[in-house]
Amino acid sequence: MSTLTHRPLPTRPTIGVDVGGTKIAAGLVDGEGTILATVRRPTPARDTAEVVDTIAELVAELSEGQDVEAVGIGAAGFIDSARSTVLFAPNLAWRDEPLKLKVEQRCGLPVVVENDANAAAWGEFRFGAAQEASSAVVITVGTGIGGGVILDNQLVRGDHGIAAEIGHIKVDRGGRRCGCGQRGCLESYCSGRALLREAREIARTSPHDAARLLELAGGSAEKITGLHVTRAAEEGDPAALECFGQVGWWLGNGMADLAAVLDPAMFVLAGGVSEAGDLLLAPAQAAFKATLSAADFRPVADVRLATLGNDAGIIGAADLARTR
Amino acid sequence: MSTLTHRPLPTRPTIGVDVGGTKIAAGLVDGEGTILATVRRPTPARDTAEVVDTIAELVAELSEGQDVEAVGIGAAGFIDSARSTVLFAPNLAWRDEPLKLKVEQRCGLPVVVENDANAAAWGEFRFGAAQEASSAVVITVGTGIGGGVILDNQLVRGDHGIAAEIGHIKVDRGGRRCGCGQRGCLESYCSGRALLREAREIARTSPHDAARLLELAGGSAEKITGLHVTRAAEEGDPAALECFGQVGWWLGNGMADLAAVLDPAMFVLAGGVSEAGDLLLAPAQAAFKATLSAADFRPVADVRLATLGNDAGIIGAADLARTR
Amino acid sequence: MSTLTHRPLPTRPTIGVDVGGTKIAAGLVDGEGTILATVRRPTPARDTAEVVDTIAELVAELSEGQDVEAVGIGAAGFIDSARSTVLFAPNLAWRDEPLKLKVEQRCGLPVVVENDANAAAWGEFRFGAAQEASSAVVITVGTGIGGGVILDNQLVRGDHGIAAEIGHIKVDRGGRRCGCGQRGCLESYCSGRALLREAREIARTSPHDAARLLELAGGSAEKITGLHVTRAAEEGDPAALECFGQVGWWLGNGMADLAAVLDPAMFVLAGGVSEAGDLLLAPAQAAFKATLSAADFRPVADVRLATLGNDAGIIGAADLARTR
Amino acid sequence: MSTLTHRPLPTRPTIGVDVGGTKIAAGLVDGEGTILATVRRPTPARDTAEVVDTIAELVAELSEGQDVEAVGIGAAGFIDSARSTVLFAPNLAWRDEPLKLKVEQRCGLPVVVENDANAAAWGEFRFGAAQEASSAVVITVGTGIGGGVILDNQLVRGDHGIAAEIGHIKVDRGGRRCGCGQRGCLESYCSGRALLREAREIARTSPHDAARLLELAGGSAEKITGLHVTRAAEEGDPAALECFGQVGWWLGNGMADLAAVLDPAMFVLAGGVSEAGDLLLAPAQAAFKATLSAADFRPVADVRLATLGNDAGIIGAADLARTR
Repeated sequence: MSTLTHRPLPTRPTIGVDVGGTKIAAGLVDGEGTILATVRRPTPARDTAEVVDTIAELVAELSEGQDVEAVGIGAAGFIDSARSTVLFAPNLAWRDEPLKLKVEQRCGLPVVVENDANAAAWGEFRFGAAQEASSAVVITVGTGIGGGVILDNQLVRGDHGIAAEIGHIKVDRGGRRCGCGQRGCLESYCSGRALLREAREIARTSPHDAARLLELAGGSAEKITGLHVTRAAEEGDPAALECFGQVGWWLGNGMADLAAVLDPAMFVLAGGVSEAGDLLLAPAQAAFKATLSAADFRPVADVRLATLGNDAGIIGAADLARTR
Repeated sequence: MSTLTHRPLPTRPTIGVDVGGTKIAAGLVDGEGTILATVRRPTPARDTAEVVDTIAELVAELSEGQDVEAVGIGAAGFIDSARSTVLFAPNLAWRDEPLKLKVEQRCGLPVVVENDANAAAWGEFRFGAAQEASSAVVITVGTGIGGGVILDNQLVRGDHGIAAEIGHIKVDRGGRRCGCGQRGCLESYCSGRALLREAREIARTSPHDAARLLELAGGSAEKITGLHVTRAAEEGDPAALECFGQVGWWLGNGMADLAAVLDPAMFVLAGGVSEAGDLLLAPAQAAFKATLSAADFRPVADVRLATLGNDAGIIGAADLARTR
Repeated sequence: MSTLTHRPLPTRPTIGVDVGGTKIAAGLVDGEGTILATVRRPTPARDTAEVVDTIAELVAELSEGQDVEAVGIGAAGFIDSARSTVLFAPNLAWRDEPLKLKVEQRCGLPVVVENDANAAAWGEFRFGAAQEASSAVVITVGTGIGGGVILDNQLVRGDHGIAAEIGHIKVDRGGRRCGCGQRGCLESYCSGRALLREAREIARTSPHDAARLLELAGGSAEKITGLHVTRAAEEGDPAALECFGQVGWWLGNGMADLAAVLDPAMFVLAGGVSEAGDLLLAPAQAAFKATLSAADFRPVADVRLATLGNDAGIIGAADLARTR
Repeated sequence: MSTLTHRPLPTRPTIGVDVGGTKIAAGLVDGEGTILATVRRPTPARDTAEVVDTIAELVAELSEGQDVEAVGIGAAGFIDSARSTVLFAPNLAWRDEPLKLKVEQRCGLPVVVENDANAAAWGEFRFGAAQEASSAVVITVGTGIGGGVILDNQLVRGDHGIAAEIGHIKVDRGGRRCGCGQRGCLESYCSGRALLREAREIARTSPHDAARLLELAGGSAEKITGLHVTRAAEEGDPAALECFGQVGWWLGNGMADLAAVLDPAMFVLAGGVSEAGDLLLAPAQAAFKATLSAADFRPVADVRLATLGNDAGIIGAADLARTR
């Protein structure tokens, strides 16, 4: 597939909305992926109707005086393949929520709903680290792990809209329990939560080894944060480096599995943990190369850090709104 | 994506060629996937030039008196993304072989080269078990394991033409050595070779348990064949059922990983081992359901047995020849 | 070895001292294992000299007006094979501490030093659950896991005094990090700490499944205690039962390994977690039988719950003091 | 324990008999462990009565003109703790065979029956590699794996006579099937059979990597022998070294588990595979040190190669005959 079917370049701006567990951020974005304006509000915790209200208000705010073409919404959860309904959202109370319809009724604009990790992946693919590739796997290592897959310039959504759940390939059968009900999922070994758990386990079981981490955390294993681990690792602390080494090791293993199935041109590492840069990238690349099947007989995908940071979700959702 | 972008229905027949390690089979196929004629020859073992000769001769034979539109060739190995060159073939001596060019020069017909498992998967997708789906993962459990992935009615080839190497996702890190140089690949646990190894290991280490298998094999563990295992399993022999149970268990685990990444509508089990039917299907489905992430919150892909048998490769290659 | 070399039955009482991380308990014990009197004090945290002071004071208190024969001290850590010196104690600051000498100088009584888990095991062997056996493995599942091995009526101390560290056989290579510096040790999977970690992981990743556990803990995963898990499990709560099931599963696996090496007449489960009784015993026994090598061709060791509770350490240390 | 409780030094010779699957070897041995004469015969395959006949004949032959004190018999299988009855023998048809009684009736000499690996271990402990230690674990890596444990100068027999089955500690749960009915036993990863299986798997799946091994074996994976692997490894062949590396890796892991439980002064590596010397010893020692719990805080057991070769079983059985 060589023609870029995803867009004739538009001239009107679109709005991208990133619905997170703690805040909802929205941005007015032009056809080049440039954010022209942003607004944000806390996510209403109790009431899903209020979430729709908040989205509508943010869209109204950004639309004022603008000729907006459409709205793209990225939300955590399973989205149906028609990109209309949130089938299941782990953090909000949505079950079979007709989000597209509700927001369209409130805003009077065409709406597209997409999984948040897919939206962020699309942002990096179109305007970020992977903009020169025609295929990419974007791995968002945040509290958990999210993924987006682009093949032949198309976002892979899956038959039921729930593809690219790469946090749930198994890397250690019978291992740690995952929120999905299984054991041994990649997410349990490669995520911000896993990084902290490694650090805290060292601090609890080997306080001597974790002296620097405990010092940063005021003496309490429970108070160790991701920033503490990153800072200690940057100083060369062996325990903190072990934590990143573990997370990176599993990440590289997961990438090798994904390369076998998808053969992408590029992997992009995004999300909060990836902001540690080489601390994550180096062990991940080493493990990827060490565990890639037939590595001597095949081209090896490039591995890069994301470039759009937290804006990737807004930019990606806004761009996806053009491909209705 | 509902329109069938892959073809305007043709009226002229095409030729599909399936280049295997021991024989080369070719067929004249109409636009409905029906084989009109077939020919086959042993694969010349020593000389890659002879393989091209043989392909050309088979094509000439089938073309005689026919208005053939094009030729599709399925071959084991890494094929470049332009579908022209065999980068690496494990069984033949091809390295960077410009197969498309050579056969076109000999036959005077347009030629498309494709990985053999991809071709067979495409056959099942277009005219076999998955013809009503718009996405499918076809898993060919033969001596080894091959795969083909179709998403949104498109064959997934990968950036370098080597996607769908599903036999090389890791299911048991540090486990059995695989021909790819890694350890723990699915292929080492789920393949005809793995089935035999299980049976022979039981026969060698627990001959009492393997009494029926040994009886069928004339008393020698080394002489146990796949047919012996299938026959004993059909009789209810516990050792033989354990062998299928193991292979099926790992197959189901691999399917759960693939479902997390690809979310296909359907899995199709093909290849020689799948001819054992329920002996493989039942444990595979059980393991798939038991290990699928978030199984309670998502639609579960259908799992079916292939319907085209050994013809899938010819039919698929012939159809792919229409999509140049 | 059939003669009971460990004792001519004495008529004078001995003192057993159990040095724990938070308290030091001592008891005056007669030759039948009956505790005649007990005293206890908090463990001095900072100063190892103070620990010796405290032991001496407790011994003096219990000795008053008694014709005490000897003193036995059980302490966590590596004790040399002469039963004199604490080579390394994980909780106290002892390194090569000549504890026997120091306490003898202070008390004027013969002193024997033993690992605390060994002392408790010896107590159960002589006067508790294993008193009718001539060999036993006592597994103390507390915060961590401790073990004591008796073969042919003799406590197995090892060449360097550090045998029976059964918490550090590997059950999951490359798995969870252990305080010993390795990964995958039994202690990381089978201990009070592991039980809590399982419960908290469920609560953090699947709060819906852990509803009852969270209710008992006032809504906070971090506040779940062992008592909460036990209580919920007794009510039949699936998440709590899963936690005990996991811990018991690994315990049974460890027992199968120990049976292969030691072939004891009996396993005795002691320590705080074992107070949950059948909640631990049932999955442990099931896993033991399921994973025991050649189970059909060998006698299977009995598995029982300890009967002496927290007194086992005092009783065992006091009895070991007779075997100088 | 420094006094040698196991014997007053005798002056009369004893006979040691080593009952193997293919041959029965017997020797006349003096009190210093020196073999004065040996005889051997093929093992009668069909009839257990004939095995007793053969043993009796060999004993009669060696006794002629000698003042023999007693006979010790080492046989593969589970021997009861009274050292009289073979409960179960994997290679012969013995079930609850009263071997002591039968041989005593035929020879008129006192007889002791012992497990063959225990007898060989005792030989190495008394007169071979471990003669200066007071505790040792002897690991016999032959076709399978056998073990003998000596603690405090006493052979550990276990409550039912079946201790030291170290080949059946699990090192890879759910892994390769073992003859004992379980999966993942050490024997399946560390034995002559495992060495060959590794070599043949490389030859079958990666013939290019196994070129030297295949050359030595005349081109057939099935014909690779242990001598081929040893010879290729001595030449520096990477595939052969990988095979020894794997076997040694698992051996070292097993030793680390055994050290945690038994804390021996020494490990002795015996059996056919150990004749490869450093090819096995080096990776085993490396893995042992890398996986030993708390390696920085404890004395590390010595690891040595056996010195008595195939005579260990005869010498050990003969010496055990003195300790009735």
